[in-house]
Order: sequence, then C-alpha cells, then structure tokens
Amino acid sequence: MDVSPLTLNRISVYLRCLRRLHEDGVSRISSQQLANKFHLSATQIRKDLTQLGGSGIRGVGYEVQPLIRRLTGALGLDQKHSLAVVGMGAMGSAFTRHIGFNHGSFQVAAGFDHDAAKIGQKVGDIVVKPTSAIGVVIPQLDIKIGIIAVPREAAQDLADRLVAAGTRSILNFAPVRLENSNGVHIRNVDVRIYLEELVFYLGADER
Amino acid sequence: MDVSPLTLNRISVYLRCLRRLHEDGVSRISSQQLANKFHLSATQIRKDLTQLGGSGIRGVGYEVQPLIRRLTGALGLDQKHSLAVVGMGAMGSAFTRHIGFNHGSFQVAAGFDHDAAKIGQKVGDIVVKPTSAIGVVIPQLDIKIGIIAVPREAAQDLADRLVAAGTRSILNFAPVRLENSNGVHIRNVDVRIYLEELVFYLGADER
Repeated sequence: MDVSPLTLNRISVYLRCLRRLHEDGVSRISSQQLANKFHLSATQIRKDLTQLGGSGIRGVGYEVQPLIRRLTGALGLDQKHSLAVVGMGAMGSAFTRHIGFNHGSFQVAAGFDHDAAKIGQKVGDIVVKPTSAIGVVIPQLDIKIGIIAVPREAAQDLADRLVAAGTRSILNFAPVRLENSNGVHIRNVDVRIYLEELVFYLGADER
Repeated sequence: MDVSPLTLNRISVYLRCLRRLHEDGVSRISSQQLANKFHLSATQIRKDLTQLGGSGIRGVGYEVQPLIRRLTGALGLDQKHSLAVVGMGAMGSAFTRHIGFNHGSFQVAAGFDHDAAKIGQKVGDIVVKPTSAIGVVIPQLDIKIGIIAVPREAAQDLADRLVAAGTRSILNFAPVRLENSNGVHIRNVDVRIYLEELVFYLGADER
C-alpha cells in the first residue's frame, strides 16, 4: 500500500476521534460531520478512508465500530508493538512513563543508558540496561521500533547499533537529523524546531 | 513575510547546521555543499535563503557567520523568549529541564500544575505555581509562548486560559488537537501519531 506520511497522520487523527465517538456511544458518522471536526473537506476524508478500505453508505455515513477496526488493522495497530528507548535522561524517562500509561498498542520493552548510575534503576515498568547490551537484547525481544533520546553526539552511533541489532523504525528526539540507512524508516522530532517556528509566527504579527 | 511552515522547518535545520560549521571553523559554504548535507537541491536552498534575505556570491557561496546572523534575526531568535509550561508531569518536567540545558534563545520562565504535591517544588530553574495563577503570572512576565503538557481532558481549558492571559503561540503535547482561536498559532505534537506512522511503515514491508 502506498500511503503518504501526511495521509497517514490524518488517518491517525481520524482514528483517535472515532475511538472517542465510540466511547461516547456514537455508532454512525457522515464524512461531512468528520469534515467539520477536522476543518477538512468531506471529499478529502472519503478519499483517505477509501484508500485504507473503509467504505461509507450514501446518506447514512460510516459505521463507527467497523471503521475503527478497519483503520486499526490497516495501520498495524491490532498488534502490540515493543519499543526500545535509548537514553534514560529526562526525555527518555518521560517517554517511557508516558507510553506505559497511555497507549494500548505500544509498550516499552527495554531501556538503555551508558550511565552506570542509571543502569539497574527502574523506570516505569522496565529496568535500565547498559547500551552495550543493545546487540543482545533487541533481537532477543524482537524489538522493531527504537526511540533515540540521547545527546546529539551519541545519536547516530546508537541508531546504527539499533539498526544492526534488527530495529527497523526509529523515532529520534536528539537535535540532529539521523542518516537513514538500509530502508530503515526514521522520524526526526526536534522540539527546538517547533519552538523556532512558534517564535517566527509571533514575530510575523509585528512585521 | 509569508513563509510556509515547511520552509521554516528547513531554515531551522540550515541554521543548526550553519552554527555547527561555524563552531568547526568553516567560514564559507556553497549552496551545493549545503544541498549535499540535506539531500535537497541547491536551487531549493538558494530559494529558501533568498526568501529570508540571505545572499550568496556566485562561485564563492555563502559567508557562514553573516548568514547565521541573518537567519537568526529573520526567525526572531536574536531575542530571548520566555516560555510557560503547563503540566509538570513527566513530559512537562523533561521539557523544562531539556530547554533549560540546551538552548540559548529560550528559557522556561514559569511552570504550572494543579497538583498540590507539585506546587512549590523546584523543576530545573523554576518553582512550580498553581494553574490558578496563570492569569496573573503570564502578563506579569510577558510570556507569549505556552507549552501544554497535561492530560487530554484538561488541555483545551488550560490553552484557553493561557490565551486569555496573553499567550500567542502554543506547543501542545497533549494527545488532542487544540482549537485555534484569536489568531493564536498552535502546533500539536502528538508522539503517538509518530509511533503509529512508524508502525505503518514497518507493516508496509510485509504487505
């Protein structure tokens, strides 16, 4: 299936909204009602949903629960996914606790740090392991998704070690763009870039 | 100046790279060399830089230091920006410490929580205040940028209170899309959406 990252982000947002509608007891919704919620056109929404195999009925709309099941399956969220977090500083620990609390499809199965003071400590549900164990632990637990939350200088090396151990997708919080290798999918999330964007729009009011 | 968020993100990345080049003692760089670093076309880079008033010399390239100054000013980063963090849980505390450590243009000037156990505690350089103080503290410290790091249910109300108190840009980590009001610029950062994207691309290999 060839779906762009932007479409995927919209699907992810629809799914979250549909889950909430379902919790609130809503069983059907039209593409126009969805469109109003997201400030998108109904045509766009129908196109996105059709692409993932969701089909509505003219004049009736979408059945919420089957659509949730369909999108969940299409996104691969009907399975549990194990994550490894590399870097157990403020960011990595926050992420580990946040995911542990909040989300059904994801669990942090391993956390690594090179700091002897952190190794052996408990964070959320896991016990921190040394980064030297990456090559053993990742294949053992069959972890395909890695989170990088280390300083810039260490990020590329640790990403490479994750990939060598079998990780195939990486979410990177380090303030550096990681080089993508071997068809591994990397998503860079640099909080400072978002802040700089906000500042720019602040200033734009005065220009 | 009318600059799209995508252009802005690229500029932010160029700026980070230029700062590093400057630290490494590089004084000039061509658009082609920049292009190679970012896997973009040299034409794209020249277009982006021209838009913010940066000009290179044919056959010579860009002078690194003046270009840094130019981009820093264009992005509004030549001033110090005060941030308020609302929600001093794992995410808000991590953010506060991370920004405190890492970045010259930003400082967390205030942090809020409604939990009595957190109020009065020190996080990084600040002392946590009750959310009831938002209306007083935000104008007092002239804070224009707010960070929302609270559970979904509380996010919209707290964002509205920030805006009512004078905040004009919001970075939202709560897993809900905030409604944008009064020309306030809101950037939603939902880590779970990024994770779902990674899972999709994992699965795409097998489909």
